[in-house]
Amino acid sequence: MANLNPIDIFIPEIRQLVADKNLGELQGLLREINPIDLADGFSRLPPEQWMLILRLLPASKLMSVFEELDNDKQEYVLEHLDDQHLLPLVDGVAPQLVAKMLTRLAPNTVKKMSNYLQRGKRENIPQLTECSPECAGALMRTTYLPLRPEMTARRALEQLQAILRVRDETTADTLYVTDTHGHLLGELSLRSLIASPPDLRIRDLMNPAALIKIPATMDQEEAAKLFSKYKLLSAPVVDAENRLVGLLSASDMIKVLQQEATEDIQKLGAVETLDEPYFKVAFSRMIQKRATWLCALFVGETITAAAMGFFEKEIEKAVVLALFIPLIISSGGNSGSQAATLIVRALALKEVTFTDWLRVMRRELLSGLSLGAILGVIGFGVVITRATLFHIYGPHPILLATTVGISLVLIVMWGTLTGSLLPIFLRRMGLDPATASAPFVATLVDVTGLVIYFGTALLLLRGTLL
Amino acid sequence: MANLNPIDIFIPEIRQLVADKNLGELQGLLREINPIDLADGFSRLPPEQWMLILRLLPASKLMSVFEELDNDKQEYVLEHLDDQHLLPLVDGVAPQLVAKMLTRLAPNTVKKMSNYLQRGKRENIPQLTECSPECAGALMRTTYLPLRPEMTARRALEQLQAILRVRDETTADTLYVTDTHGHLLGELSLRSLIASPPDLRIRDLMNPAALIKIPATMDQEEAAKLFSKYKLLSAPVVDAENRLVGLLSASDMIKVLQQEATEDIQKLGAVETLDEPYFKVAFSRMIQKRATWLCALFVGETITAAAMGFFEKEIEKAVVLALFIPLIISSGGNSGSQAATLIVRALALKEVTFTDWLRVMRRELLSGLSLGAILGVIGFGVVITRATLFHIYGPHPILLATTVGISLVLIVMWGTLTGSLLPIFLRRMGLDPATASAPFVATLVDVTGLVIYFGTALLLLRGTLL
Repeated sequence: MANLNPIDIFIPEIRQLVADKNLGELQGLLREINPIDLADGFSRLPPEQWMLILRLLPASKLMSVFEELDNDKQEYVLEHLDDQHLLPLVDGVAPQLVAKMLTRLAPNTVKKMSNYLQRGKRENIPQLTECSPECAGALMRTTYLPLRPEMTARRALEQLQAILRVRDETTADTLYVTDTHGHLLGELSLRSLIASPPDLRIRDLMNPAALIKIPATMDQEEAAKLFSKYKLLSAPVVDAENRLVGLLSASDMIKVLQQEATEDIQKLGAVETLDEPYFKVAFSRMIQKRATWLCALFVGETITAAAMGFFEKEIEKAVVLALFIPLIISSGGNSGSQAATLIVRALALKEVTFTDWLRVMRRELLSGLSLGAILGVIGFGVVITRATLFHIYGPHPILLATTVGISLVLIVMWGTLTGSLLPIFLRRMGLDPATASAPFVATLVDVTGLVIYFGTALLLLRGTLL
Repeated sequence: MANLNPIDIFIPEIRQLVADKNLGELQGLLREINPIDLADGFSRLPPEQWMLILRLLPASKLMSVFEELDNDKQEYVLEHLDDQHLLPLVDGVAPQLVAKMLTRLAPNTVKKMSNYLQRGKRENIPQLTECSPECAGALMRTTYLPLRPEMTARRALEQLQAILRVRDETTADTLYVTDTHGHLLGELSLRSLIASPPDLRIRDLMNPAALIKIPATMDQEEAAKLFSKYKLLSAPVVDAENRLVGLLSASDMIKVLQQEATEDIQKLGAVETLDEPYFKVAFSRMIQKRATWLCALFVGETITAAAMGFFEKEIEKAVVLALFIPLIISSGGNSGSQAATLIVRALALKEVTFTDWLRVMRRELLSGLSLGAILGVIGFGVVITRATLFHIYGPHPILLATTVGISLVLIVMWGTLTGSLLPIFLRRMGLDPATASAPFVATLVDVTGLVIYFGTALLLLRGTLL
């Protein structure tokens, strides 16, 4: 199923109908195709046919298809679409897209487009391009009908019907009430409006206070979290003066949440965010994004070689000690990766904040002790068992096993503590907690792990093995 | 902001109004509080006051608050709520919740509840408890008004108004059309309905085919991906015979996507899914979920000690070789973690599927070669530089540096290939690709990394250092 795109079924039929110039039937067929699938199919049709198809679509569907197209295809469409279809298109798409298009298009196309922009929208665009592309305002829709508090339900419904008959507003299931200056006063679901006694005033129908508003400058991720927490399907976007400037929809927020999760996952795997699907990222770009972290980690890890050099004499005396190095440092790294992952996700979901650092520390100290004790006991057992069975590991197996066991307890505690507190302090310093990736934490813990291991060995084995 | 819960402001006021028995004003205040915040606040109010508050809420808000409560609080409410409020509550909540409640409540409460269940819903419940709690059907709402194709728009609107006046349907922004047997025929937005000429028939207004339907047995994650791909705000749920059995809403899907991302992130960090927020998981449970993987990895990593034992003679001859072990095996682990993370996420987002394995392999072979070459050159440089500056690393620095450099190329290639293909084959075998966590891949690569390193050393250094 994953590989079968629904559009695959329609493409041959579309080609045939275009060849036959059977526009009536083509229009009927297009009605049946989901706009997102249709946009998928454009890459398999020649550009002239795109224009033919787009002109057969109703305005709202034209907009949905357009928004799904690649940048290049969008440009082509804007340059070639006739004025009659350009108007609703430019008017309906998100201001972010308009702003992005304005910077990339040929001057006369920009001029043509600007003429079509609603006054309110034209005013919004410079303001919105100032806010970062990560801000909520960049994703909002600007087509909506604000209601006035003094309207009756009947009047509001009539006005809405009149507008809907001209163009299909895609995000009008919740209506927002503003005063004459555009200040947001309340919200009202289309359902309540329909069910209301026609003579009641909007003021008495609207829900004034429980309203969740999104400042246009709020980070998209924050906005998405409000959608998640309050199970919103849509939310009003306001400027600094509480004026309604647009709407956000849950379907846009789903994309935001998925992108954020992808970014966090990639960072946790020590890859800089790819920003594009795996197969679409240019090879050189992907190598660069992976090499950056890999080199940084490598340089960090060269310290282990230096640390090991410091203990070269001890290794010469007791080569047996070297055998457990990978086992011991990787246990520190693994426990650190676990703790870091848990805390990074908990921070992202706001289950944990900076002020919780002491609680986290207490909990992780105890976790580290417990986990370290478990691994320490296993490690002790493994060394003793192998020494007994195979007569390896030299003349002092119990001392060696004790060294391994105690080192494991200490290193796992240290790894757990580092892994859990590092993301919290990264957040505190304004950095991304997800930078505390499993490989990063492992590298940090490797160096200290060696020091802990050889320190323990020097204490316990002096006079025997060392 | 993260720590200030909006309900904090309202709690003292609620307490005061309850103490004053000022129910009128309390009702007004409750109207202003978001149901999710209100449910948050219940833990800070005594149970008697919950009942007082719930009875003052309109049915739809009562339902929203109820759904947000903990299991214990839900039980208390069901046992103590009067019949007048129980009816819309039991009728409105998701069948999953009803099914869960039925298994946990006192027999006479179950009996009382069953009496209130709509016939259709009662029939659905046994069927739905058979489907896993992970299936789409378990999340769906069952309150909706199916339209018939032969209805006029006017009649449909009137019927909807009549129902909305009795109870506020929370998921009715899209309407679904069924035949008399309940088979799904099409959908129609509430917006199109109100904008339609009143005498048109639903058959001519509805959107018949572009409809995205969710089988009740579909995995919630799959359903959420359809919501994401097609930017849905709601979708109809159908049984195996294409009969409409419920609705899903984008707000529920957001939760599903976040949970799935959390699961993947935790698995990638080698923690079994916690299922609860960090501070809410019982300590013993968290230790168990972390210890499982940590022990498994530890046992796997003990093989490195055995592998090192195999090369003990070589280490004795050239201790200098041991110094680079952490550096070299961690580079393999890091490159493997990167590749695994990228592919696990790409699989989750369906950017990559099993059939792409050959393409992935080619791309990752090339990536591994490029990344390995970069690290190999740096590694070679580091060894030469340190040897020259500090006169360490013995009599054959160039040979040693070459050994380190070549080992790095091979190990990074191996790590990258293992990390990228392992998740694909895990998926193929029906296992979760996210099992290929950074620590798991690192452990796998550590053992083979040692073999590659000492193998290269034996080839290059025989007769000189070895």
